[in-house]
Amino acid sequence: MKFFFEPRGVAVIGATPKPNTGGFSLLTNLTLGYDGPIYPVNPRYPEIIGLTCYPSVSEVPDPVELAIVFVPAPGVPQVLEECAARGIKGAIIESGGFAEVGPEGRALQDRCLEIARRGGMRLWGPNCMGLIDIRKRYVFSFITSDAWQDILNPGGVSLIVQSGLLAGGFMTTLMSHKTLGLAKACSIGNKGDVDETDLLEYFLEDDATRVIALYVESFPRGRRFMELAARRKKPIVVLKGGKSASGARAAASHTASLAGNYELIRGALDQAGVYQADDFFELIDLARSLEQNFEMHHPPDEKPRIAVFTYSGAAGIVTADHLAERGLTLADLSSETRQRLEKLSPPWMPVNNPVDFWPAMEKHGPEITYREGLSALLNDPGVDGIIVHLFAGFGVWFLDMKKILAGVTGPKKPVLFWLIGHEQGFHPTRLALEELGFPVFTEISRTARVMAGLFSEKGLAGTVQPAADPVPPSAILKDLSRQAEDRRPATLDETESKKWLQALGLPVVPEKEVTDPEGALAAAAAFGYPVVLKGRKPGQIHKTEAGLVKVHIYTPEQLKAVFLEMAGLNSRPASFLVQPQLQGDLELIVGMVRDPQFGPAVLLGLGGTRAEVYRDVVFRLAPVDREEVKRMISKLKGRALLEGFRGMAPVDLDLLAEWLIRLGELAGRVEAIQEIDVNPLLIVKGEPVAVDASIILR
Amino acid sequence: MKFFFEPRGVAVIGATPKPNTGGFSLLTNLTLGYDGPIYPVNPRYPEIIGLTCYPSVSEVPDPVELAIVFVPAPGVPQVLEECAARGIKGAIIESGGFAEVGPEGRALQDRCLEIARRGGMRLWGPNCMGLIDIRKRYVFSFITSDAWQDILNPGGVSLIVQSGLLAGGFMTTLMSHKTLGLAKACSIGNKGDVDETDLLEYFLEDDATRVIALYVESFPRGRRFMELAARRKKPIVVLKGGKSASGARAAASHTASLAGNYELIRGALDQAGVYQADDFFELIDLARSLEQNFEMHHPPDEKPRIAVFTYSGAAGIVTADHLAERGLTLADLSSETRQRLEKLSPPWMPVNNPVDFWPAMEKHGPEITYREGLSALLNDPGVDGIIVHLFAGFGVWFLDMKKILAGVTGPKKPVLFWLIGHEQGFHPTRLALEELGFPVFTEISRTARVMAGLFSEKGLAGTVQPAADPVPPSAILKDLSRQAEDRRPATLDETESKKWLQALGLPVVPEKEVTDPEGALAAAAAFGYPVVLKGRKPGQIHKTEAGLVKVHIYTPEQLKAVFLEMAGLNSRPASFLVQPQLQGDLELIVGMVRDPQFGPAVLLGLGGTRAEVYRDVVFRLAPVDREEVKRMISKLKGRALLEGFRGMAPVDLDLLAEWLIRLGELAGRVEAIQEIDVNPLLIVKGEPVAVDASIILR
Repeated sequence: MKFFFEPRGVAVIGATPKPNTGGFSLLTNLTLGYDGPIYPVNPRYPEIIGLTCYPSVSEVPDPVELAIVFVPAPGVPQVLEECAARGIKGAIIESGGFAEVGPEGRALQDRCLEIARRGGMRLWGPNCMGLIDIRKRYVFSFITSDAWQDILNPGGVSLIVQSGLLAGGFMTTLMSHKTLGLAKACSIGNKGDVDETDLLEYFLEDDATRVIALYVESFPRGRRFMELAARRKKPIVVLKGGKSASGARAAASHTASLAGNYELIRGALDQAGVYQADDFFELIDLARSLEQNFEMHHPPDEKPRIAVFTYSGAAGIVTADHLAERGLTLADLSSETRQRLEKLSPPWMPVNNPVDFWPAMEKHGPEITYREGLSALLNDPGVDGIIVHLFAGFGVWFLDMKKILAGVTGPKKPVLFWLIGHEQGFHPTRLALEELGFPVFTEISRTARVMAGLFSEKGLAGTVQPAADPVPPSAILKDLSRQAEDRRPATLDETESKKWLQALGLPVVPEKEVTDPEGALAAAAAFGYPVVLKGRKPGQIHKTEAGLVKVHIYTPEQLKAVFLEMAGLNSRPASFLVQPQLQGDLELIVGMVRDPQFGPAVLLGLGGTRAEVYRDVVFRLAPVDREEVKRMISKLKGRALLEGFRGMAPVDLDLLAEWLIRLGELAGRVEAIQEIDVNPLLIVKGEPVAVDASIILR
Repeated sequence: MKFFFEPRGVAVIGATPKPNTGGFSLLTNLTLGYDGPIYPVNPRYPEIIGLTCYPSVSEVPDPVELAIVFVPAPGVPQVLEECAARGIKGAIIESGGFAEVGPEGRALQDRCLEIARRGGMRLWGPNCMGLIDIRKRYVFSFITSDAWQDILNPGGVSLIVQSGLLAGGFMTTLMSHKTLGLAKACSIGNKGDVDETDLLEYFLEDDATRVIALYVESFPRGRRFMELAARRKKPIVVLKGGKSASGARAAASHTASLAGNYELIRGALDQAGVYQADDFFELIDLARSLEQNFEMHHPPDEKPRIAVFTYSGAAGIVTADHLAERGLTLADLSSETRQRLEKLSPPWMPVNNPVDFWPAMEKHGPEITYREGLSALLNDPGVDGIIVHLFAGFGVWFLDMKKILAGVTGPKKPVLFWLIGHEQGFHPTRLALEELGFPVFTEISRTARVMAGLFSEKGLAGTVQPAADPVPPSAILKDLSRQAEDRRPATLDETESKKWLQALGLPVVPEKEVTDPEGALAAAAAFGYPVVLKGRKPGQIHKTEAGLVKVHIYTPEQLKAVFLEMAGLNSRPASFLVQPQLQGDLELIVGMVRDPQFGPAVLLGLGGTRAEVYRDVVFRLAPVDREEVKRMISKLKGRALLEGFRGMAPVDLDLLAEWLIRLGELAGRVEAIQEIDVNPLLIVKGEPVAVDASIILR
């Protein structure tokens, strides 16, 4: 990938001398920063802006590693043939008219990819704005030079955006408003070849890049992306577009329906330790705060403890509300901190958190107040982060924050500022604070959101594991796998699916298959009442809706009546299952789904047959271990139900973990299995038992 | 209240000629705008800035209706005595040092209130920044004139803020950044006397006020506030501070614990038709959008349908994500709209929603693209609102939006802009759009949030009802009420509480009270198995945790064993209840709580005994009717469970409504009842039955 970022020689195919065109901007942008040889290519001109222009890339002299292609789409394959023949290593196709415009364009794009593959060349784009290296001032993009020349603002964040126009517009906005300094910015467009996974890999090793921020709509190599991200040593922030789009697959199982388009990806990003954003500026707010490389302290088994330093009781209260909503808590200040703050405030002012510093400010002025107040909070071991409120206005429009904050000492905990104020004071104050390494926000909600974001990942490596070597399967599992190969595609009903679960050593409700009332009565007598009667039809998996499940059968009379009723259905079941009715405290759902981009993933959720209502579910890429299952549980909103809620027995964690570990292993071993749905997984005196299940073979 | 806003004569008590003091600013602020007589009061000066200064307010000539008091707290009572004697109608106390600093200050404040009450005078504050009438340029506040002189920007929003410093700082920010024009801004501080309810009442009748925006932390006269708000003809937006504070009461019942500090208020605000915000700028964003008085069309039984007009596919996708998260949906464009848009775009560009207008822009330029595109969307009857993306940058930094939007025709549906761009183009474009009546936001999330906010209330009157005249109670209810009077305070257990419910005609699970195993067996035989056995102890309401509830008893043997076990508990129950075990599909919770500020309120929630886990509950001020109960259900996240989920019988709405109607009526009739908890309310074949209940008499 280095030839894209630091090419030895760049050919611009489609360069022109006509101002206000992409082909002109491409060339002038290169001349304004790139320090290697530049070769315009266009048969119509002998030279452009003083550079020798070549009729074709074949005639460009050495060295030349990169081609930037900006000719109409139909001409691109021919150009690529020539690039490959010339030994060019990479081509950035900035023209549009490919997969984004429909099937014809997609065919054209596929032709380009084929040519590149044959010629051993990497393709970037098409339909993109290329890349910019802000430090080097390399601009390999048709963006006009007006847009970037005065605003390139170097920093440590590298940006990857799957979008053409937005990339340029957004970057212009960020840099002209001095919101963010960037290392490199990449627009990857249709990502026919080079994709976010390639760039992630490159930026993880790039010295200029301290934080990686991405906007992406899909992860064509999702598994690889997550494995790389999990091994990261740099923070990665992702904004995923298209969360709400309904998945293309018709969802046969609950697990697949719950996977939707985003839940699975969210789980994988969590597992990989990737920070997640919901909007463009939020992506940037998180990235620029992560760039400060704050010393993060995560209190064990506790919410992060935040101190709020404010001039306004009301703003303190609203900040506390937003902290609580985001899962943070107000720090209990140590007695030493209280003493230091009490010295600062007039005697009538009680010291609390939020710390109201206004009375101290009136007494001592801003310099002493900030120095003493912030130093006290920074040095309190019970404070994990600080939110400071600042007003730039009235008599102190141009607060010299550099001077004011100079004496603050203590560990480099995250300190975020909420700033409002008169327009004249606001901007210089913001810039001074940002320069000092204190991220500034204009809304309390955002300040709290970013603080929570900083604590959302523990800065450790993620836990996405490559598939483990499958342990040798039991004879029965071998047998089932062989049968599955012969039958695929197929939907396995409860009886068949439970055989698989039993083969994995997982407990399922016992059953007796019968065909007449006498058989049912005998089975019930053996199990003991109450019992459940289910009608079995080949391939039928949604039995409840079809009237094929009857519960709460307490007596032989009731069983007989229910049997006859079910046998009299328009389409009589092929056979009947009698099962004891277990008395559970809680219904869960566990499952497995094989995703085309992320491979096998497992699911844990609350609500069992009603899981779709609150969608309180967590996905993880398989395989998982016991620790991962613990993390999954910690993400459930209703996790209190698993911990011994109101006299219930707590769920046995080892037994529950076993389910997710085994389902994940099975997915790795038996490729024929597309989905597994165990729903409900009933918790009986703390122990999970499958009461219904289905498996889909692909 | 008019004498606060348009006083005939103002005395400034504590005026001084010393610059940079509050007493000086108060006076100069008056001279810069107020057009009535101004009387500085201070025994130390004969005149201040050319105005005759009086030694005491007693000596001030006529007319004088308002006093602004800015003397140290201990001197305030004496000053108020003089004001009352002088016949002053209202006093704004801007000094601090009262209830906000502790018990001594509170006592001082109470003395002031007593003096004012005796003297027939209204008090505003203390500990506040007074009020500003932006149109009239009346500034009755110690804010420095630097802070407001160049920025007063008249508009239709009146602001009420329960905070001193923030009010001034926030207003300065809003007006200097030209975020908002204001009608009146009020800082009500400790609101010893004049509170948000007084000001709401005043602004509802104030011609200059089109929208009322409030930041408040408490509603001391909550019931009255909601009744006024519900009758409103102007939009009201509230930001409630202190949502997360844990209620002061120890929560005995589930209903009280679920009421917490905010859930009840949120329900009351919903019921009153008040718009709700979560942050300061969000409050303002909603208020300024409501000020535009858009024509709102609410599709019946559907989500509001939004069109997105964008230059970027990615921004369109992220907007769709945020719309979906906020309960809005993308509009299906009519065939006429599609045809109009197809004419605008090049042939290869498919017309979808989000509408990507970039190709049209390249072809026709911005003027035609905006005029045609927006007009088409505005005139589509299937479009309820439009979000427009705009980039101010590159060749078109100074887009003349006034010219560009001049030709747009159609109904005045809500049109909100998401604007980013180069700093130089951004600000003028924003101001031009705002002037045209199009609210502008810099974040997609906020744009979607405000659009959802505009649709969150239907613009109709709210449904808070004054307590109905109680219908004559039945003999049994009279009897129960009499007993309750004698016993209060007390906690009524299940058996006693269910008597009340039965007296209201509400179905409860039958029970038989027994004292020995034989009695239990006879009762079970009469009910039929399975049964439930409960141990009864006087005043005990949390039975499950105490081991006093046993379910799933299928046989006489099991019953006998369970009975003996429960009878052998360390503290043996006084008696035992045998009940049939009902087979329910769903557990709900309903309840009533009497709030000190809002009066009686009813609760409906999902989850029954587990309601605290997801807190999916809705409160309403009592009394409620059937329509209100329908609205409550529509606010439940898990409402699908009530509508016939996966083969379940749908819940009978009339029967469920009866519960909330009757509990609300009972609260109005029997003052002795503090809380009622019906939990679980079991749904059996669609019909609600109380399976446990408790009542707390106060």
